[in-house]
Amino acid sequence: MHAIGFTDHLPIEDPASLRDVTISKPSAQGHDLLVQVQAVAVNPVDVSVRKTGHEHRMRPKILGWDATGIVTAVGEAVTLFQPGDHVFYAGSFRRPGCDSAYHLVDERLVGHAPATLTTAARAAMPLTSLTAYEALFEQLHIPFDPAKPNSEKCNQTILIINGAGGVGSIATQLAKLAGLTVISSASRPESIAWTQQHGADLVVNHHHDLVSEVHALGIKDVDYILGLSDLDSHWNEICTLIKPGGHIASITENRRPIDLKKLTKKRGTFAWEWMYSKSYYHTADMISQHDILETIADLLDRGLLQSTLSQTLRPINALNLRQAHQLIEQHHMIGKVVIEGWE
Amino acid sequence: MHAIGFTDHLPIEDPASLRDVTISKPSAQGHDLLVQVQAVAVNPVDVSVRKTGHEHRMRPKILGWDATGIVTAVGEAVTLFQPGDHVFYAGSFRRPGCDSAYHLVDERLVGHAPATLTTAARAAMPLTSLTAYEALFEQLHIPFDPAKPNSEKCNQTILIINGAGGVGSIATQLAKLAGLTVISSASRPESIAWTQQHGADLVVNHHHDLVSEVHALGIKDVDYILGLSDLDSHWNEICTLIKPGGHIASITENRRPIDLKKLTKKRGTFAWEWMYSKSYYHTADMISQHDILETIADLLDRGLLQSTLSQTLRPINALNLRQAHQLIEQHHMIGKVVIEGWE
Repeated sequence: MHAIGFTDHLPIEDPASLRDVTISKPSAQGHDLLVQVQAVAVNPVDVSVRKTGHEHRMRPKILGWDATGIVTAVGEAVTLFQPGDHVFYAGSFRRPGCDSAYHLVDERLVGHAPATLTTAARAAMPLTSLTAYEALFEQLHIPFDPAKPNSEKCNQTILIINGAGGVGSIATQLAKLAGLTVISSASRPESIAWTQQHGADLVVNHHHDLVSEVHALGIKDVDYILGLSDLDSHWNEICTLIKPGGHIASITENRRPIDLKKLTKKRGTFAWEWMYSKSYYHTADMISQHDILETIADLLDRGLLQSTLSQTLRPINALNLRQAHQLIEQHHMIGKVVIEGWE
Repeated sequence: MHAIGFTDHLPIEDPASLRDVTISKPSAQGHDLLVQVQAVAVNPVDVSVRKTGHEHRMRPKILGWDATGIVTAVGEAVTLFQPGDHVFYAGSFRRPGCDSAYHLVDERLVGHAPATLTTAARAAMPLTSLTAYEALFEQLHIPFDPAKPNSEKCNQTILIINGAGGVGSIATQLAKLAGLTVISSASRPESIAWTQQHGADLVVNHHHDLVSEVHALGIKDVDYILGLSDLDSHWNEICTLIKPGGHIASITENRRPIDLKKLTKKRGTFAWEWMYSKSYYHTADMISQHDILETIADLLDRGLLQSTLSQTLRPINALNLRQAHQLIEQHHMIGKVVIEGWE
C-alpha cells in the first residue's frame, strides 16, 4: 500500500526528506481498528520527529498523527466500532503514523467522526482537540460539563499564549464553552483576527512584554495560563501574571532551567500536557481519549465548536506532505493544514 | 500584655534568642477577632523565621502560627464568631504571631475549636491540618467528600515523604479518610511506629533509595506524591515513582534547580503548598481556611481524626518556647509540641 515516510533526517527542501513508499498493509488484531485513511493533518510534532536525529533507518518511518477515515476491519477485542464507521483520531507515538492508505489504531484512542463536517475539516481536529481538552480540563482542572457548554459565564480568566495556533484555536473555543474570559496572545493582524473569530475576548501581543500587555487591559492577574509556545521566554511573565492558587500548563518544553520557586508563595500549580502520554504508557484511563473525541464530535455537530482547518492540499503524497511541513516550519501557520485523498 | 519575641537572629542556645516581652494589647476591628490565647504550638516555620536574617529589630517580632483560645472581642464586620467562642487557627504570615496573651486574627482564618479535645491537643492541629488538607484536596486534587469520610477504598496510592512529621501525621490520616493506600516514609523505629499508628498502610525508609523501597513493596508507581522534606534529594525518585498523569505536591522549596522536564512524557503535575498563601495575598477564597478548620474540628470530634500532639510544655514563656524551638531544630520531632497556659 502507499505510504509517505523517511529514512534520513533531511531538510524539508531535500526531495528525499519525505518519500512516497510502498509498505505492506497491516491487519487488525485485539483492540485495533484497520482504518482506510481519507485525510491527514500535519502538526509541529511531525516536523520535530522528521528533523531531529542523525541516524539512517533501514525501513522508512511513517509520520502522521491526525487522521480521518473509514473502519474496514476490527480486531477480536473491539467493542466500540464496526466496519463502515467513519472515525477520527490522533493515535499513538509508539506506532507507525497515519500517513498511509491504511492504518492501525487502538479503538480506545478513536472517536466517531463528526457527521456534519467535511473530510478535511474532520482531519484537522483530533490531535489539537485532545491536547486542548486534556490541558484545560484534566491538567488545569477547569470545571466543565460537556452536557452544559456555554451555559454560564464564570468569573475566571485564562491567558492562552499563542492562541492562534492549532491547539490555541481549539483551546480558545473550549475555554469559552467553559465560561471563561479568554485572553489570547497573537502578533500579526491575520492571527489576531483568527483568534478573535475563534472566541478570544481580549488579545495581547506575545512579542511585547505580556505583563504590561495584560495590565494594560486592566487585568492584574489570571486564574489559568496555557503556554503553547516558548516556555523559556515567557516563564517570568507567567509567574507574575498567575493568580495566587492559579494553575499553569504547558505543551512546550523548557530548554533552560526554569525557576519553579517563583511560584511557592502563590502556591502555584504547573502541569505538562502531552497528548501521547496515555497511549505511550498504556494508562488505565487511555479510553478517556475515545470519550474526549466523542465529546468533541458532538460539540462540532452541534455547531458549538468550529473546525480549525485553514488549508487543504490534495492528494496525499510526498510532495504535498513536504509542502505542509514547510508551512509548519515557517512558524506562521494559522489553524491547521490538511492533506486529503489519494491519487 | 505578656508576649515572647526576638529582636536579633540568634542561636537558640542564646537566652536572648527568644525573650519575654511586654507589648500593648490590640483591639479588634473589621473582620478581626481578639483571642485570649490558651495554648500555642511551634512549627518549623517559627525556627526558620527566628534563625534567618541578620538585622536588628527595634521592636520585638512575635512568632507563633498555631493557637487555641477564647474570643474576647470582635470587630464590627465579624459574622462567624462571638465573644466566648473557643477557636483554633494558624493565622497570617503578614501579622504578629500568636505567642502572646491576646492575639488578633481575621475570622476567615479561624475555626471553632473541636469540643472533645484538650486545650493542648487543639493547639497542635491548625497549621498542619490546613497544610495537609490544602495539599491533598486542593493542590493534588484528590477527590474527598468530608461528609463521607472513610466511606470507600479507592484504587489509588499516595507516597508521603516524611510521614511522621507534623504535616505528615495529618496528611496520612486525611489520605486514609479519602480512601487512598498510604505509603509513608520514616526511618527510626519510633517514627515508623508513629506513622503506622496514624494509618500508614506501608512504610519506606527515606534514607535509602525510595524507588527501590517502593518497588520492594511490589508497587511500581503511585498516583500522588506529597513531599514534606528535602525536595532536592528526592526529586529524581519522585519523577521515577509518579504514575503517568500523576500529581506531585511539595511544601519544601528546592535549593538546587530541579529538572521539571523529567515529567513531560508522563504529563505530570507539580504544585506547591504554602498554607499562608491565601492570607498573604488576601485571596477571594481566603474563607476556605475557616471551612477547612470547621471540617477538621468535626472530624476530630467524630473521632475520625486524631490530634498529633506528642509533647506539652507549661507555661507559655521564653524558656519553654526556646525548648520547643530546640526540639524542632534537632529534626527528630515526631508529631507536635505545644506550650500551654500562662504563669
